[in-house]
Amino acid sequence: MEKREAGELANQLRLKIGLTWEDLASAISRPPVWTAAAILGFHPIPADQARAVAELLGLEDDAVTAMQRQPYRTADDSLRSDPTIYRFYELLQVYGPAIKELIHEEFGDGIMSAINCNVELGRVAHPDGDRVRVTIEGKFLAYQW
Amino acid sequence: MEKREAGELANQLRLKIGLTWEDLASAISRPPVWTAAAILGFHPIPADQARAVAELLGLEDDAVTAMQRQPYRTADDSLRSDPTIYRFYELLQVYGPAIKELIHEEFGDGIMSAINCNVELGRVAHPDGDRVRVTIEGKFLAYQW
Amino acid sequence: MEKREAGELANQLRLKIGLTWEDLASAISRPPVWTAAAILGFHPIPADQARAVAELLGLEDDAVTAMQRQPYRTADDSLRSDPTIYRFYELLQVYGPAIKELIHEEFGDGIMSAINCNVELGRVAHPDGDRVRVTIEGKFLAYQW
Amino acid sequence: MEKREAGELANQLRLKIGLTWEDLASAISRPPVWTAAAILGFHPIPADQARAVAELLGLEDDAVTAMQRQPYRTADDSLRSDPTIYRFYELLQVYGPAIKELIHEEFGDGIMSAINCNVELGRVAHPDGDRVRVTIEGKFLAYQW
Amino acid sequence: MEKREAGELANQLRLKIGLTWEDLASAISRPPVWTAAAILGFHPIPADQARAVAELLGLEDDAVTAMQRQPYRTADDSLRSDPTIYRFYELLQVYGPAIKELIHEEFGDGIMSAINCNVELGRVAHPDGDRVRVTIEGKFLAYQW
Amino acid sequence: MEKREAGELANQLRLKIGLTWEDLASAISRPPVWTAAAILGFHPIPADQARAVAELLGLEDDAVTAMQRQPYRTADDSLRSDPTIYRFYELLQVYGPAIKELIHEEFGDGIMSAINCNVELGRVAHPDGDRVRVTIEGKFLAYQW
Amino acid sequence: MEKREAGELANQLRLKIGLTWEDLASAISRPPVWTAAAILGFHPIPADQARAVAELLGLEDDAVTAMQRQPYRTADDSLRSDPTIYRFYELLQVYGPAIKELIHEEFGDGIMSAINCNVELGRVAHPDGDRVRVTIEGKFLAYQW
Amino acid sequence: MEKREAGELANQLRLKIGLTWEDLASAISRPPVWTAAAILGFHPIPADQARAVAELLGLEDDAVTAMQRQPYRTADDSLRSDPTIYRFYELLQVYGPAIKELIHEEFGDGIMSAINCNVELGRVAHPDGDRVRVTIEGKFLAYQW
Amino acid sequence: MEKREAGELANQLRLKIGLTWEDLASAISRPPVWTAAAILGFHPIPADQARAVAELLGLEDDAVTAMQRQPYRTADDSLRSDPTIYRFYELLQVYGPAIKELIHEEFGDGIMSAINCNVELGRVAHPDGDRVRVTIEGKFLAYQW
Amino acid sequence: MEKREAGELANQLRLKIGLTWEDLASAISRPPVWTAAAILGFHPIPADQARAVAELLGLEDDAVTAMQRQPYRTADDSLRSDPTIYRFYELLQVYGPAIKELIHEEFGDGIMSAINCNVELGRVAHPDGDRVRVTIEGKFLAYQW
Repeated sequence: MEKREAGELANQLRLKIGLTWEDLASAISRPPVWTAAAILGFHPIPADQARAVAELLGLEDDAVTAMQRQPYRTADDSLRSDPTIYRFYELLQVYGPAIKELIHEEFGDGIMSAINCNVELGRVAHPDGDRVRVTIEGKFLAYQW
Repeated sequence: MEKREAGELANQLRLKIGLTWEDLASAISRPPVWTAAAILGFHPIPADQARAVAELLGLEDDAVTAMQRQPYRTADDSLRSDPTIYRFYELLQVYGPAIKELIHEEFGDGIMSAINCNVELGRVAHPDGDRVRVTIEGKFLAYQW
Repeated sequence: MEKREAGELANQLRLKIGLTWEDLASAISRPPVWTAAAILGFHPIPADQARAVAELLGLEDDAVTAMQRQPYRTADDSLRSDPTIYRFYELLQVYGPAIKELIHEEFGDGIMSAINCNVELGRVAHPDGDRVRVTIEGKFLAYQW
Repeated sequence: MEKREAGELANQLRLKIGLTWEDLASAISRPPVWTAAAILGFHPIPADQARAVAELLGLEDDAVTAMQRQPYRTADDSLRSDPTIYRFYELLQVYGPAIKELIHEEFGDGIMSAINCNVELGRVAHPDGDRVRVTIEGKFLAYQW
Repeated sequence: MEKREAGELANQLRLKIGLTWEDLASAISRPPVWTAAAILGFHPIPADQARAVAELLGLEDDAVTAMQRQPYRTADDSLRSDPTIYRFYELLQVYGPAIKELIHEEFGDGIMSAINCNVELGRVAHPDGDRVRVTIEGKFLAYQW
Repeated sequence: MEKREAGELANQLRLKIGLTWEDLASAISRPPVWTAAAILGFHPIPADQARAVAELLGLEDDAVTAMQRQPYRTADDSLRSDPTIYRFYELLQVYGPAIKELIHEEFGDGIMSAINCNVELGRVAHPDGDRVRVTIEGKFLAYQW
Repeated sequence: MEKREAGELANQLRLKIGLTWEDLASAISRPPVWTAAAILGFHPIPADQARAVAELLGLEDDAVTAMQRQPYRTADDSLRSDPTIYRFYELLQVYGPAIKELIHEEFGDGIMSAINCNVELGRVAHPDGDRVRVTIEGKFLAYQW
Repeated sequence: MEKREAGELANQLRLKIGLTWEDLASAISRPPVWTAAAILGFHPIPADQARAVAELLGLEDDAVTAMQRQPYRTADDSLRSDPTIYRFYELLQVYGPAIKELIHEEFGDGIMSAINCNVELGRVAHPDGDRVRVTIEGKFLAYQW
Repeated sequence: MEKREAGELANQLRLKIGLTWEDLASAISRPPVWTAAAILGFHPIPADQARAVAELLGLEDDAVTAMQRQPYRTADDSLRSDPTIYRFYELLQVYGPAIKELIHEEFGDGIMSAINCNVELGRVAHPDGDRVRVTIEGKFLAYQW
Repeated sequence: MEKREAGELANQLRLKIGLTWEDLASAISRPPVWTAAAILGFHPIPADQARAVAELLGLEDDAVTAMQRQPYRTADDSLRSDPTIYRFYELLQVYGPAIKELIHEEFGDGIMSAINCNVELGRVAHPDGDRVRVTIEGKFLAYQW
């Protein structure tokens, strides 16, 4: 079983059983975005946590093995046009150069790491309609020879 | 003069004079990410603020007109591979499906608006090296017929 | 069963039984364009309506589950060249910039929402041959920080 | 002078003078979407109307000639990602197959013409925020050997 | 069974039985190019004719149903590079602009319909080697608002 | 001066003077499609005919030289989406495989030459509206080792 | 069975049995490059030769039928990057324009046929290491109306 | 002056003066394909030979410098569709896998070098029409760790 | 069984058994990068070594045959975006032109062979965190006619 | 003046004057690969070193400013097909997955940094012909939340 198949299967069982991603995240004591990404196939899941997820969802052993495997975290461009995901690409299109300018202004020549990095999703109440808040925090890495 | 040319010119003058984006943002009382994006050509700048920017940077009248014009906010795919910008695309590649799952879990069927939305960039001190924090906050829009 | 497979199956049964999309739309009290899009896999269908569709068409339980699931509304570029669909892309090619100009002239800087939006299809009688009328109506969203 | 250059020039002069597309449309007694599309370079403009536009905007003779020329109405894919235009592509992505189904159900095998066709843009007042309405009406053409 | 699968199956049986496309075309009283295109999956075939084809070739009922279905006439770009097909693309590359010029010169602003249109293939004897003749005839449609 | 620039210039002068492609074709005793293609830059024009064209249109010597030069007859994909040209691509999409089948049925394994080939455009009167007729005739070339 | 599947199967059996392409070519009295191309699916193989190949390799009847069928000789771009094949694309990249210049200089306006054409592969002994020699020979076809 | 500009200029002067590529090749004692490729910008030309070419064609010093420079031998995909060049790509499409099979059968695992390699173009008289012969000869390089 | 399938299977068994690539490399006395590449399907593996690998991992005979087969070493672009692999593409993007300049400065006109070449991976201890070292060493090949 | 223009100008002057990249590198006490990359436009060059380079090459002030500017290090895909550069892409195609496997085996889940990284080029004498050696050394970064 491939890692992403295991993720798709886990997701179907999760919906059937009626567990939220938050429930799974609590069960393995990991943040929700990491948990969802890892189960969907984008991170290797440590053995104990893979087994815990499997028990909650009723997954077989080969899914446990698949969840532990080192993934290829490759781009699936076919997902990019999904409206919920696309809006984030549009934000990079509109604000990407501004973000680059401000990173260099504040930190100098370098990048925000996408490896030593975490992502959080929250809800912000607002009278005109609640807002989604996504916070990304990654280590600054200077270009260094 | 095209809007993005005006932005490139403004940026060169900004560096020559030694003004930061933060300086420009304060001068027109707008947030730094908005200010940088707008001057680089991604937003129409209200007349007063366009003139204030022009005065600070020594820009001519046609640049003031260009800064006020309604832009095409089109994608410039050639910028995507710049390492500082690319890391954000990589994050969407790795965490995009997880973010989609959690938005739907928390808010139901819909999207985070990229129009009614703001972006902020900050520095977080950390013993292992300071961190870049990007906060995106947009109104949730439910699919609604 | 994947959501779009369920849609393809539903469509085949619909033709076999001899029901129109209008029939299905009436049966679940939803507009025809929404109904066709949703059954083909582009919207989650509320449980009651999914069961009603399933009963009419003789679909199994896993199709009912699939119809309720949150979809990826991704682009299927292979459909774009179908002549019936392509004509709409050609219209955007020819009239897209004009529509953009007039939206900004009338409403200011912003977009017509594709989320809070509805689409209707009708027939207009005409001596030289009847005409197809497509009406799209979406909420204006101003760029707002 | 190329046709689209003439259009860009006309647009800049229009903004400088402070004329709306509606003003230009009235002046030549043509609908606004047609007028904007034609001036931007997507239709040949009859001689009288080209001269009328030129007089209003102060355009030279070569622009008048360019406006009359038969255009290449080719796709400019770089515009597609502009958020105001993109939402219409997203609508085709989500509703294209449904529209195709309903055209065939109502009219049989064929297409809505994009040649014998008109497009209108309007504003619909709404308590939750005004709405953009786009109406497309084209002759149905049956596949006919 | 999908429409194009039915076409592939029909074609294999046709070869096995030893029937030409001309034979099939005569049997259903339709022109050969239409007949081949329709059986290969590019047109819906009326019920009587679908049954006649099926009887000649020994096709099952689900193929008859598939042949009647409304097709997606989408582009299969992988076929384009086949040398026999490619030569026609090369002709458009070399003569497309000339054809456009002459259509506009003779008919004014508009297109040759690809919907109300027929295509015929013939052989022209020639001392240096026989020639293929392809005749395309489609209704002129004027751009009309 | 590049060959296609010379073609663009010739075309502008042709329109200014009020000559049709037919006029130019008669003047050099060549068929209209060949004449338009050659002047637009897709064929080398023999010296006498290049000079005759230049005299009629008032072209300079370097344009005469450019018209005689051996061209690169490369594809300009940006023209493909022009509606007048696109309809021919759509025809290949819909009828290409049928044409291939019938060429092989009639002539065996091989192709219709796009080099030893001619193209003619005509008008066919029709009560429902006149029709465009395009006739392509090329030598059959058998695959031959 | 598809033609290229038959070719893949034939190739596997060929290796298992220990026959070279040269052996197969001799057995059917055809040149090696033609033989390999034809068996891999790029030419229809005459019935006698298809049966001879099948007998040598132990192929079933449906493979014999597949080998006789008229192929789509379409491009498989995924093969292009194989280093052994890629070097030939690189040669066209570096020497293509030079070859074009010299063909026109020697033969005038036209092409080397890829249909009436043959290809041969040989070994040339050389003190610094043996050399691969590929000889392509095709009929010159003049552009002819 | 860029290397390929120098090549284009050299080619125009060559035609004006009436020199063939063969003439230039003899003048610098290099094979014709190498000479044409090098002058068009695909090889650095040794100083003496660059000066000899410049003298024959009347080129200025900066062209001499440009001809000596180390080139980027990058692909210009826009040339690929030129019919004279395209036929060679089509040959690789049809015979590439066969050539690969036969190289490995004859030489083992490795490639024909495109660096230590030469290309020759000739004319072969033939009663049905003369033939173009292209001979490519490159050193075999074994995969070697 | 295809070569890359055999590689995927071998890799799964390797993980299950708990053998490292280093273990496999030692067992067949080949360098680790070569061993991993070969087993994953990028090199033909000599019969003895293929059997040794199969014995260690418990692979069947058809996998042994697959491992010995001559591969297509084609690009799998879908892997390119994996972050671990992507960083090497980014290095070529940033340092490719510099490497080209220095190869030509040191060796003259030519290339580093990717065929007669080896790659080694090592760990370099460093107080700020250990470093990955990749060493590539390939024969210089001069452009030679 | 744009950063890459300044690099192209610097390179032309460097060749004219007869300085090697090694000379420039020594003059500013930086490694050769870094120096070439930086001057060609891929790194900001500190003010002192930019001035030192400018003095050696006779560059004007605006080039000094351009060399100091923060670059967009975007991919220039048109360079990828240059044979000297392409061989490195081919190596990633063949050895990329093996390198990924071995990095994870040795270091765990993470990447080799392309930011905190250096590249060195050397010559290795060899009886069969000297070899190019490229050494890449980058910090290992573990995936870390």
